[in-house]
Amino acid sequence: MNRITELFGIAHPIIAGGMVWCSGWRLASAVSNYGGLGLIGAGSMHPDNLIHHIRSCREATDKPFGVNVPLLYPQIDELMRILVQEKVKIVFTSAGSPKKWTPFLKEHGITVCHVVSSSLFAKKCEEAGVDAVVAEGFEAGGHNGREETTTLCLIPAVREATSLPLIAAGGIALKCQVEAVKALGAEGVQIGTRFALCKESSAHENFKRHCMGLAEGGTRLLLKKLSPTRLAEGEFMKRVAEMEERGATKEELSEFLGKGRAKRGIFEGDLQEGEIEIGQICNMIKEPETVEEIFASLV
Amino acid sequence: MNRITELFGIAHPIIAGGMVWCSGWRLASAVSNYGGLGLIGAGSMHPDNLIHHIRSCREATDKPFGVNVPLLYPQIDELMRILVQEKVKIVFTSAGSPKKWTPFLKEHGITVCHVVSSSLFAKKCEEAGVDAVVAEGFEAGGHNGREETTTLCLIPAVREATSLPLIAAGGIALKCQVEAVKALGAEGVQIGTRFALCKESSAHENFKRHCMGLAEGGTRLLLKKLSPTRLAEGEFMKRVAEMEERGATKEELSEFLGKGRAKRGIFEGDLQEGEIEIGQICNMIKEPETVEEIFASLV
Repeated sequence: MNRITELFGIAHPIIAGGMVWCSGWRLASAVSNYGGLGLIGAGSMHPDNLIHHIRSCREATDKPFGVNVPLLYPQIDELMRILVQEKVKIVFTSAGSPKKWTPFLKEHGITVCHVVSSSLFAKKCEEAGVDAVVAEGFEAGGHNGREETTTLCLIPAVREATSLPLIAAGGIALKCQVEAVKALGAEGVQIGTRFALCKESSAHENFKRHCMGLAEGGTRLLLKKLSPTRLAEGEFMKRVAEMEERGATKEELSEFLGKGRAKRGIFEGDLQEGEIEIGQICNMIKEPETVEEIFASLV
Repeated sequence: MNRITELFGIAHPIIAGGMVWCSGWRLASAVSNYGGLGLIGAGSMHPDNLIHHIRSCREATDKPFGVNVPLLYPQIDELMRILVQEKVKIVFTSAGSPKKWTPFLKEHGITVCHVVSSSLFAKKCEEAGVDAVVAEGFEAGGHNGREETTTLCLIPAVREATSLPLIAAGGIALKCQVEAVKALGAEGVQIGTRFALCKESSAHENFKRHCMGLAEGGTRLLLKKLSPTRLAEGEFMKRVAEMEERGATKEELSEFLGKGRAKRGIFEGDLQEGEIEIGQICNMIKEPETVEEIFASLV
């Protein structure tokens, strides 16, 4: 038992990241059923679909689970209303200021965690009344901090900056890494990549197979002129890298990116046109696993 | 006692990186005197100067010390001849293939360690007959791997790839970080930044003060078209970043870089024209320290 397991009422301080196109009710409920905290990734869901996932998750587990909300979500007001209406108890917010929505969520009795990539923002979380902070390093897949601070450097800095319960994220997939971030002062871990590639993840099989086949060094942090994003090797990354090498502007990159690229890559498994987002540690995941197997190897 | 302390005949498995313009005989002998392994950084020394540093180090300590040799060194044959002639017992090689010089050094009874940024090269070290491998992550200052693998992700991969004694490097300055990389499977640590900024380092006071004043996120990995290098915020980095943003070619960058930039920045303390190289963890080092104080906090 520590502050993280107490805060969420869970057995193990292991949280499955709420990842776009991966974290539906199936993954979230499985993680919660094995004693971790499952999160539904609202970032890729239409409001109606989010309601469906929350209700299905509740049917599939009687354990605590949560919802991850990127604060840049276009219909954010409607989404927040749904969280309250559906009586969600735990919300992880990311990609935005913790000041805007934390008071609203807390007023409705919701436990709030916020994802940060610097100790400066960790302090802002404390001021905003957030209950726990997730500090995520450069290794993480998908959208990422501009500072490029790695988990090894970030966790001691955040530990020093705030007394809030601290969850480490970014590059954590193995038991030895869970032990390592504990030594750095983290009280829990948020694991993305390993759960994104497991059997209960709603990502497409092509995506999972592609990511499990990547060698060490098979991801890169690109799109820094828009929002830094860790991409996996492949056609999309190659084209982005070429554009950036020749100094493509923000506008050119934004036009090339267009809409729905991540859905195409992760959910529809289009390895040619789709955007493939995954964490740096994917090279250590070589076989399809179930959530049960993941917990057996970590706990 | 472990394989690293036995291999070098030292009390603590703590190695001070052999850093250009920082690691002269003064720093190396102090580290060895406190029970770690001090390294002289040959990369920034003319052959005659290297002889001077080796002899001065031997006068200042009767404990084991070593020399770090970047294999791109222009007069590498002469330098290798000096290492043998001066009866250096431990050599750390970096920035090149371990196959070229390891047999020569081993024939002369020298213990050889090689610095890698991937498990692929760690395996090559094993084939080349290297005695121990230093695996250095993306967090490290100065020249850095193209794969951008962080220490947290790199160490478990290298641990899996080779049974060689393993030293972790990159982003390690604090005791909790030493514990963390031990959990990942490292048997020793190589610490750069914290020793580069200590009182015995031969770097200029301007450089040390500048780096100790940097906030979290105050370094960036740039010059990727030449050789990826972690630079500290300041005039030089600003100009490099601007050039890269507009897609400057390798040739343009190389011409801008010119010669002697690192000497100007690190050794002469020219914060306008000089190149300032330091690791990502510099924000955690706030006060000038002695080697004695560093060992007291780590051991």
